[in-house]
Amino acid sequence: MRGIAVLGSTGSIGTAALRVVARHPDRFRIVALTAFGNAELLRAQQRETGARYIGLVGESADRDDAWGKSAECLVEAATQPDVDIVINSVVGAAGLAATLAALGAGKRVALANKESLVMGGDLVLHARDAGGGELVPVDSEHSAILQCIGSRPRDEIRRVIITASGGPFRTWSADRIANATVDDALQHPTWRMGRKITIDSATLANKALEVIEAHHLFGLPYDRIDVVVHPQSIVHSFVEFVDGSTIAQLGVPSMELPILYALTHPARVSDDAIPQFDPVAASPLTFEPVNHPAFPLLELGIGAGRRGGAAPAVFNAANECAVAAFLDGRIRFGELAECVESALQALSDLPSATLQDLTAADAAARAHVARRSRD
Amino acid sequence: MRGIAVLGSTGSIGTAALRVVARHPDRFRIVALTAFGNAELLRAQQRETGARYIGLVGESADRDDAWGKSAECLVEAATQPDVDIVINSVVGAAGLAATLAALGAGKRVALANKESLVMGGDLVLHARDAGGGELVPVDSEHSAILQCIGSRPRDEIRRVIITASGGPFRTWSADRIANATVDDALQHPTWRMGRKITIDSATLANKALEVIEAHHLFGLPYDRIDVVVHPQSIVHSFVEFVDGSTIAQLGVPSMELPILYALTHPARVSDDAIPQFDPVAASPLTFEPVNHPAFPLLELGIGAGRRGGAAPAVFNAANECAVAAFLDGRIRFGELAECVESALQALSDLPSATLQDLTAADAAARAHVARRSRD
Repeated sequence: MRGIAVLGSTGSIGTAALRVVARHPDRFRIVALTAFGNAELLRAQQRETGARYIGLVGESADRDDAWGKSAECLVEAATQPDVDIVINSVVGAAGLAATLAALGAGKRVALANKESLVMGGDLVLHARDAGGGELVPVDSEHSAILQCIGSRPRDEIRRVIITASGGPFRTWSADRIANATVDDALQHPTWRMGRKITIDSATLANKALEVIEAHHLFGLPYDRIDVVVHPQSIVHSFVEFVDGSTIAQLGVPSMELPILYALTHPARVSDDAIPQFDPVAASPLTFEPVNHPAFPLLELGIGAGRRGGAAPAVFNAANECAVAAFLDGRIRFGELAECVESALQALSDLPSATLQDLTAADAAARAHVARRSRD
Repeated sequence: MRGIAVLGSTGSIGTAALRVVARHPDRFRIVALTAFGNAELLRAQQRETGARYIGLVGESADRDDAWGKSAECLVEAATQPDVDIVINSVVGAAGLAATLAALGAGKRVALANKESLVMGGDLVLHARDAGGGELVPVDSEHSAILQCIGSRPRDEIRRVIITASGGPFRTWSADRIANATVDDALQHPTWRMGRKITIDSATLANKALEVIEAHHLFGLPYDRIDVVVHPQSIVHSFVEFVDGSTIAQLGVPSMELPILYALTHPARVSDDAIPQFDPVAASPLTFEPVNHPAFPLLELGIGAGRRGGAAPAVFNAANECAVAAFLDGRIRFGELAECVESALQALSDLPSATLQDLTAADAAARAHVARRSRD
């Protein structure tokens, strides 16, 4: 019986995680839950799961002194002694501190918080190695790569190929994309997700973040990580080995499988509720090259990853702030990449050695884009 | 440095194996070669590889007393003390005795001889377990399954899905197939192979044999082995795990990869000569259900596998003899299944406990079909 903390339990990954855990009461029990804002759902989750520790982050935290206060409760939840696995589905930079704390305390971190590796990849790997923790991805692409690698050592991998749905603008011209509306951009063809990540899927910024995460998770140089467009989102990624063999993981789009696998890795446990893959129903599977000129945020983000230091944190924060400006109607879709590029040019050389440095770079990038998008 | 015996070195698998081994002189050396009939090529292979032991099987064996005599040389080659791995690409029942001897002597058998498992699955597994040998498939489908399973235990597998190109008659009506000519049947869409196996691909009898082999190799009941038509022959098979995740192995059709993997399993070694998989070039990948009424040999063969005992040996031998009759113009394509079904009805209850029993069942099935196809 392994104790689980779910950070971000009221979001889409968090609620899926609770459904998965509820199906396996013989293996897992919920020990701690934290949520942002949604006190009512969090209380209901506490009643259903019997979680011993709950923490409400955000504005409403002060309404009840019995609850954990502000972001510190993330770290507190993640390091409870009876927690074995931390499902980190926090959105934003606060997730990084929780990842570092959990790994430092020797926990397994099932990671859905992209800031952890994008902002703080080097710090996270150091915390893992120093604390004896374990880092397992929850993202469907990285889970696929982990499943394809299996128990083979890293030097047998020639490259990984991350699949991208291509988003709603896959077949659009660059000019038409530049003037896409918010409604256009929120029409994701295969996955139902939050607004921010749906926009990132439309710009392919999400793939840049995934490439940076894959670089850290699997210890691969950037020239061994490719992206291919696969509109059906059935093949979740490929791993090509040094002997020329390619292994792929496939499945109907569902976050429940990567969540379950992150809990059970490297073992697999029976779960009939996860939708079954049927090759005939999924046929045809198609693959296209990325139209890079139409999706400049992909190469900008990978470039930030290659540059390292503060650049990935700046890319991530600038992109997040630019997406908020787009959703608010303050900038056009075509201006997203310009905002991010401007922040990268101004701020990539900021210090990056500590969590405080990275948090400062994150804040500087947000301020840069906020100024620019008000002009 | 591991010593290799190649049984059937002048056939298409054998020559591919010698090319693969020649690219890895730091890991493998050829110790023994045997061939059927083609003395000239065998001598040339001996000069190139420096093989210490060679054996010529078949009509021309008596021409040179220095060479091994008849089928016994297969067993002798397979059990040489400095042989670590036996690549068994013999065609026919003689391959079974060599597989049993090699496994009994603790060798790894890289198996391309289908009779070994189809005729003698239970004997082969017993020899492996008793002798401490190891059985690794060379067939691209079974190699794919092995690669997809990786190091996971058998009870994590929900089912395997073997892919079939569908052969040249995939889109034909059952009536049109019944009257297909030899030339029609030899037009395989994706693989270049010998005549017998090309006909088996046209009838899907080869998939029945592969299902029987998979049953023995991976210890799976028949209701957990499915077949799906995949005309591009890029996905070499799927493995679905108990958590709903599906893993596939993909590659451009080439026997060199499964041969190399059978030598290096579970490790992988770098080989740039094996063609690289490019998802964009391979797109689209399509999958169709099998049109069972048009390809009755598939269900006949799987039924023989389920029945067990002598039935798979009868199926295999009757099919081989019926294919020869078709290639000679003695029966129509549509009569292949009738010949095999007649043999199965007459002979499935023959004894099957020993190699001699199985050889007798094989001979009885051939005689049955020969009589029938002369009528």
